[in-house]
Amino acid sequence: MFIDLKEVAKILKEKDNVLLLSHSHPDGDTLGSATALAYALGQMGKKVAVKCGDVIPPCFDFMFAGLENEDFEPDFIVAIDIADTKLLGREFEGVYSEKIDLCIDHHGSNILYAPKLWLEADSASTAEMIYLLLCELGTDINAQIASCLFTGVATDTGCFRFSNTSVRTFEIAAKLAAYGADTYNIIQVFFETKSKTFAALEKLAIESMRFYCDERCAFICVMQDMYAKSGSDESEVDRLANIPRQIEGVLVGVTMRELKDGSFKASVRTHGDIDASAICGRLGGGGHMGAAGCTLTGTKQQAINALVKEIQAEIDAYTK
Amino acid sequence: MFIDLKEVAKILKEKDNVLLLSHSHPDGDTLGSATALAYALGQMGKKVAVKCGDVIPPCFDFMFAGLENEDFEPDFIVAIDIADTKLLGREFEGVYSEKIDLCIDHHGSNILYAPKLWLEADSASTAEMIYLLLCELGTDINAQIASCLFTGVATDTGCFRFSNTSVRTFEIAAKLAAYGADTYNIIQVFFETKSKTFAALEKLAIESMRFYCDERCAFICVMQDMYAKSGSDESEVDRLANIPRQIEGVLVGVTMRELKDGSFKASVRTHGDIDASAICGRLGGGGHMGAAGCTLTGTKQQAINALVKEIQAEIDAYTK
Repeated sequence: MFIDLKEVAKILKEKDNVLLLSHSHPDGDTLGSATALAYALGQMGKKVAVKCGDVIPPCFDFMFAGLENEDFEPDFIVAIDIADTKLLGREFEGVYSEKIDLCIDHHGSNILYAPKLWLEADSASTAEMIYLLLCELGTDINAQIASCLFTGVATDTGCFRFSNTSVRTFEIAAKLAAYGADTYNIIQVFFETKSKTFAALEKLAIESMRFYCDERCAFICVMQDMYAKSGSDESEVDRLANIPRQIEGVLVGVTMRELKDGSFKASVRTHGDIDASAICGRLGGGGHMGAAGCTLTGTKQQAINALVKEIQAEIDAYTK
Repeated sequence: MFIDLKEVAKILKEKDNVLLLSHSHPDGDTLGSATALAYALGQMGKKVAVKCGDVIPPCFDFMFAGLENEDFEPDFIVAIDIADTKLLGREFEGVYSEKIDLCIDHHGSNILYAPKLWLEADSASTAEMIYLLLCELGTDINAQIASCLFTGVATDTGCFRFSNTSVRTFEIAAKLAAYGADTYNIIQVFFETKSKTFAALEKLAIESMRFYCDERCAFICVMQDMYAKSGSDESEVDRLANIPRQIEGVLVGVTMRELKDGSFKASVRTHGDIDASAICGRLGGGGHMGAAGCTLTGTKQQAINALVKEIQAEIDAYTK
């Protein structure tokens, strides 16, 4: 099932009608990677479309500006940056789970659902892998493609700040900038612009910050009533995820948000060798070493307690 | 007076006892550039020292870890990243203003005080220039030197987020990462770590945010009493400078801090073609297109009014 870059290129060259799937709750990496590959396959004369089983936020519209996204019967379906078929989204899960031919992914937590899988768990983003794939395919990397890929490279590394950022990340960022990626504006949109409603939500979230595990763990909790107070909504919560980990001495930062059904979604960010995916994995979630997530039921305090217990265990194992 | 990279390399090769000066209120670029050049000149068998007429914050200690910084009579004095002799600091200004032989700088606002000047106003940092200089000199770039330079490259671009970030910036970042720069920890220290006292100050600062010029200008004002309330101090204020400009629709962000003598120091950050150095220049300050500063006297409201007047003029000129 595991194949490499060269095999992926060889297989794609042979296919004529390719459907690329992005994960639900889509981000810059899944969409930037899928659209960049779509443009490349289009250059090769193939019919190609990018689909996502979820609403695509307007900040990603630019990626689709030159994409025809035709309706056709695919002869090859590729999952891009999707670690688990559950992440296809409710509707797409039923339709596509059994039909995916190839998965291209960088999540170590990939559940190995695809018959063919190109997995580079130490790649900071799927976009880095797609950049290498486009080089292998020999397609032209124009400014549009470079911008799509740069968005994936930048967003999945927290703009080069996460520990997954490697020499290769900077090298590929330099190449994409040279190919004309609109690096400044992409970074402004995804990292340096706050709506007033987001700024208000951020203020409430910071006020909610509490410390556990001898101050080595910090939580912020975004409750449903904060959306009304700030004018913000759930779509803006992801950007809060780094805040608790930034506090000096904190090894594990958690941003927990109350969902409409009363359950809680937690984003866990860790420093150093503390494994966020292990913490979340034991609570039914997954992700990467430094960034992972899970969903919890029960009261807010029960959710916090469940997480703190696993976090304490992980900190203990780390500091022993 | 203007000389280029090759001439700088040629001159430095001929000198035996070189003193490198950093500017007061030192930052990652002036210190990272000076220490990196010092290590390189040391490799070439020269006596070399880095001096700064101000206290060097402990976060920069790592740059000096391998530097002997001997006491000797220099035969050549180089100002690194210093746009104006006033920036040498009060004590050093008297001692060195007339003795500087060469200035290496990237500030377009450089007052041309040095008999020889290598100025690249479109370089994002002086560290980028020093990287090129070390390549020209043919000295070894080890992990220590790479870390010094990476600190300059990262801090002067707001970790690759400012508009000065170029293809060359990413290329040099990639090279420095490959040479062993401790990129992750440097970024953590300078961008992703907040002391609890800083987090408290940040909260107060955000609460102080006010809008002017049809909401296209945002001010935060850090008053002396906020240091007592937060437990923070002036040394942490620089990191607030980007916050006002991040608000959607804001073209000019100002972080103003009250000094002990009751005057105000303003850091101005702009978007796009709005010239921060023109705004601050008309008030006796200077800097770059996107980031500049000035000092104002009078009451807080008078200081705000003076700045708002110049900012409005600049916005009017830009939006015409």
